[in-house]
Amino acid sequence: MNPPGLENAIDLSLDEGLLIHILLKKGAMSRTDLARELDCSRAKSGELVNALIERGLLAEVNNDSRTRSRLVNLDPDFGYIAGIDVGTTSLDVGVSDMTGEVIARYSTESAVEDGPDIVLGEAIAFINGVLEQEGVGVEKLRSIGIGLPGPVRFPSFSVIGDHFLPGWEGHEVHYLLQPAFPKAVIVVDNDANIMALGSQHKGLGKDYQNFIFVKVGTGIGAGVIINGKLLRGATSCAGHIGHTCVDFSGPYCRCGNQGCLEAMAGGPAIARKAMQAVADGESDLLAEYMEQNNGVLTAVDVGEAAAKGDETSLGIFRDAGRMIGYVLAGVANVVNPEIIVVGGGVSKSGYQMLTAVRRAILKRSYPFVTVNLPVRYSPIIDDVGVYGCIALASDWLFRVEGESLEALC
Amino acid sequence: MNPPGLENAIDLSLDEGLLIHILLKKGAMSRTDLARELDCSRAKSGELVNALIERGLLAEVNNDSRTRSRLVNLDPDFGYIAGIDVGTTSLDVGVSDMTGEVIARYSTESAVEDGPDIVLGEAIAFINGVLEQEGVGVEKLRSIGIGLPGPVRFPSFSVIGDHFLPGWEGHEVHYLLQPAFPKAVIVVDNDANIMALGSQHKGLGKDYQNFIFVKVGTGIGAGVIINGKLLRGATSCAGHIGHTCVDFSGPYCRCGNQGCLEAMAGGPAIARKAMQAVADGESDLLAEYMEQNNGVLTAVDVGEAAAKGDETSLGIFRDAGRMIGYVLAGVANVVNPEIIVVGGGVSKSGYQMLTAVRRAILKRSYPFVTVNLPVRYSPIIDDVGVYGCIALASDWLFRVEGESLEALC
Repeated sequence: MNPPGLENAIDLSLDEGLLIHILLKKGAMSRTDLARELDCSRAKSGELVNALIERGLLAEVNNDSRTRSRLVNLDPDFGYIAGIDVGTTSLDVGVSDMTGEVIARYSTESAVEDGPDIVLGEAIAFINGVLEQEGVGVEKLRSIGIGLPGPVRFPSFSVIGDHFLPGWEGHEVHYLLQPAFPKAVIVVDNDANIMALGSQHKGLGKDYQNFIFVKVGTGIGAGVIINGKLLRGATSCAGHIGHTCVDFSGPYCRCGNQGCLEAMAGGPAIARKAMQAVADGESDLLAEYMEQNNGVLTAVDVGEAAAKGDETSLGIFRDAGRMIGYVLAGVANVVNPEIIVVGGGVSKSGYQMLTAVRRAILKRSYPFVTVNLPVRYSPIIDDVGVYGCIALASDWLFRVEGESLEALC
Repeated sequence: MNPPGLENAIDLSLDEGLLIHILLKKGAMSRTDLARELDCSRAKSGELVNALIERGLLAEVNNDSRTRSRLVNLDPDFGYIAGIDVGTTSLDVGVSDMTGEVIARYSTESAVEDGPDIVLGEAIAFINGVLEQEGVGVEKLRSIGIGLPGPVRFPSFSVIGDHFLPGWEGHEVHYLLQPAFPKAVIVVDNDANIMALGSQHKGLGKDYQNFIFVKVGTGIGAGVIINGKLLRGATSCAGHIGHTCVDFSGPYCRCGNQGCLEAMAGGPAIARKAMQAVADGESDLLAEYMEQNNGVLTAVDVGEAAAKGDETSLGIFRDAGRMIGYVLAGVANVVNPEIIVVGGGVSKSGYQMLTAVRRAILKRSYPFVTVNLPVRYSPIIDDVGVYGCIALASDWLFRVEGESLEALC
């Protein structure tokens, strides 16, 4: 029933799993500090560390400059982790060492509708190039995390439906990657979930146990972290806020419904409104961009025009932000998070949108939930997806009583 | 910093806490079955049980008819638990034995704005009567759980703001109850949270780890259970779905905002619309009820008229259900629950509302989240609050490393 790849996971005892989990989260540590974190004796932590060094999973990395005690961490020689963040119009790949430190990055424009062969083929070529440069074989790639811009059933990792990912149904992802990297664990999840994990590991989410990461790109989605753990929901569809209807007479959405948030405020909607504005003679700057681009505009063009102060473009982003904020008001009322982090391609287009998001949240929500709720752009916007893929891949490389480290959170 | 009462909690080791938690959830059990549940040896479970019998917390209750082994459970002689469910217009009190079995119930109309002295005075009088009848002193009341129709800060148990509970601010609840029951632990929570706990212990929520309980009464709120645990949120306000705006030009809400769901679809809104319909000459039946009631209508009257087929009343409930469903669509998209359970006073007014709720959820949500999502009325509608109060009180009577059993979920 499980897709191929999971059998490559490394079995650990509960104590070993907790120890590696701590190192992945907090970095290199002395045996004494590990004992404190694990709430066990120094002798016990030493014993665990030595056994894991014996297995090649841990290594002594360097000395603590203060106490001169030796620090241990995941062994860099054990292998590499890859993160593949597939966007609707972009592909981001990162290769990290065992500690999650990214050693090589690749970003390109890419069309998800080209299908898994082409998109993943490009990722495989990049990863192979990195391994070659490092002078190691493909068997050293230990785990791969993949983010897809659509719902993914967990933990079978199959794509749910095909309305966002034509040609990606079933276990395509595994069957393509497994032959290339026969020793790797392969894990797939929805992109907004992945970004929430990235934010939790290396972004604003680091300091919070309860937060929401909102991705605004071609699609709009959220990853919800509750008590430090990603919420996946009954059918692996938690966080699908982009498909909450905001206007019954709005445009049809890729999901089949009408007036969904993402059909009203996602990248293509922003581009559509800008093109309509050009047709209505409302913006000379947008008209100029459109002529340069063979009669087409993208959300990136509208963002550039907004950055130059184009009122029409600013208005389009404010409208999008307001609609996103209305939906987030309801989300905040349910979850009562500590912070909302906003990321994704469209969020790069300036602060006007974020201001509108904040105002709309305040206007439509319960004051005690939102009056002190920070709503901020993700500062690691370009890398948060790759970081999340690598974090997920690291958690699933190890297995404690049949479960990934994710379950230990 | 803690309000009085918590010092009465009984300290347990982690194993003892887990054992009592299992008995509270599953009822009487043999030492062998307890060993299986605890994943420990039969000798260890026997040892734990004997120590707890020694302390007067457990007792042998009867024999398993099948295996003839002796069953153990919480000792009925140890004392009693009280649940006080304060509604905006009602008061429900229950007294249970240590196993959560309710032995006495009291229900009355009551106005929360009369303040804690009067409302809780009535509850105290009832509980004292029960203890007297049982022939025991007040020191036998071991724990009290109270549900209030407004937000409660957890775990300080103080009322947040005063817009729903005038006169109930601060620690009033504790300072009133503590002198009456000096040996009791006293725990306070929001009513929708309490109902979710009641549903989890004795209602439809029993079979689910992830569900939403929606209370539709004077106010509208939700209790959200994720991975078997109540979600309280960053400022103890999770589940406040009644204050999501559904109409910017709608009536002002008690919270200060405009057009909140509860101002549009709660009990008073239903009554207001019915009285408007009478003024507009739309319903003879409602006009008749209104004349009988000295010119006033309540949601209960509208429910009675709806049950008799009055089209105007049915329309009012359908409209209310539709608005509730629109907000729940957004809630479902975020949480992706296994089931939504609807309860509260207004939900007793017939199935037309539920049908409208279901249709609206389907119309406005992501199909993969809601197409197979059951949305059902709570079958224990009158008791779910009292059950929840008792469940919360039982969890907080015991303390493991400074935390209630709730934290063990």
